[in-house]
Amino acid sequence: METFTVRSSARTDFRQINQEVSTAVKATGIKDGICVVFVPHTTARVTINENADPAAREDIESTLDRMVPWDGPYRHAEGNSAAHVKASMVGHAAVIPIDRGRLALGTWQGIYLCEFDGPRTRNVHVQVVSS
Amino acid sequence: METFTVRSSARTDFRQINQEVSTAVKATGIKDGICVVFVPHTTARVTINENADPAAREDIESTLDRMVPWDGPYRHAEGNSAAHVKASMVGHAAVIPIDRGRLALGTWQGIYLCEFDGPRTRNVHVQVVSS
Amino acid sequence: METFTVRSSARTDFRQINQEVSTAVKATGIKDGICVVFVPHTTARVTINENADPAAREDIESTLDRMVPWDGPYRHAEGNSAAHVKASMVGHAAVIPIDRGRLALGTWQGIYLCEFDGPRTRNVHVQVVSS
Repeated sequence: METFTVRSSARTDFRQINQEVSTAVKATGIKDGICVVFVPHTTARVTINENADPAAREDIESTLDRMVPWDGPYRHAEGNSAAHVKASMVGHAAVIPIDRGRLALGTWQGIYLCEFDGPRTRNVHVQVVSS
Repeated sequence: METFTVRSSARTDFRQINQEVSTAVKATGIKDGICVVFVPHTTARVTINENADPAAREDIESTLDRMVPWDGPYRHAEGNSAAHVKASMVGHAAVIPIDRGRLALGTWQGIYLCEFDGPRTRNVHVQVVSS
Repeated sequence: METFTVRSSARTDFRQINQEVSTAVKATGIKDGICVVFVPHTTARVTINENADPAAREDIESTLDRMVPWDGPYRHAEGNSAAHVKASMVGHAAVIPIDRGRLALGTWQGIYLCEFDGPRTRNVHVQVVSS
């Protein structure tokens, strides 16, 4: 298992990590299998979405923030319940086939670390299994 | 890795793909392991949900459409930001155990390609690893 | 593949299952690989979220319930469409790296069976593949 870190710069902040994940997969030498990108946090996650127009990423960030407002009838003492809710909506891992030594991502697919309670430094684990 | 295509017929359209996934898994001959169903698009995804009453599937489609309206304060020039948001809510992959040569799906579980910006023809990748 | 059961005690009820999953993983003897926790139901799921303050878990439960009200313009005859919607939002599986014989969970990460149409007894499958 490989681990790298990502630094976020706002409360809600999606950071593309395709390069870091691809490098970790290539280092294993595995040609055919599955890659798991796992975020070991409860207020940051990972998603796969549009990598071309930054406005698409910003629309996802702002729409999730409208759906789950930061201030609400929450009881959790840390005050970041909205981040926990968005974390469970978006998911803790990306699971991507490896085909002929490469991630089988679509042309427009970017892998994003999804920060929901930043800015912070986050860990990302990459684990690979072969077919 | 196997790939098949699915044709959607509306903007939001969930299409059951159990048969195509089962066929791909059986072709590998693997008896014990994991199957990953991966959609290499950013406005279509995959979910597992009720396969019996079509009204259940339609309620999921229409509820997600109400939660994330097509028209909203979006900036992405393509005009399909709602589809991108729903994609990150529903998830890019299904991960299913293979047990004694079969997908370990529950009785009522259907695998669905989730179209959020159709109608289009979509690719679905199936990758399998053995235990 | 290992299977265990969880008993829920309310309509919406998140039950922590770290111990059951860890036991199943240790029994395999696998040191390096991936663990899939799969829920073979369509109105119960699995998520990973905060394990320390019970109020965080309760805020996630109640916020999802507010976002997807139990009563709404649903057509599914069983009357539990809200549970099906939340199931597709939260996801059917947890996928966790195994590193040096242990689940690579973060300090604050709990694995939860997410009941959305309880109380019921639910099955949870654990499948493991090695790197």
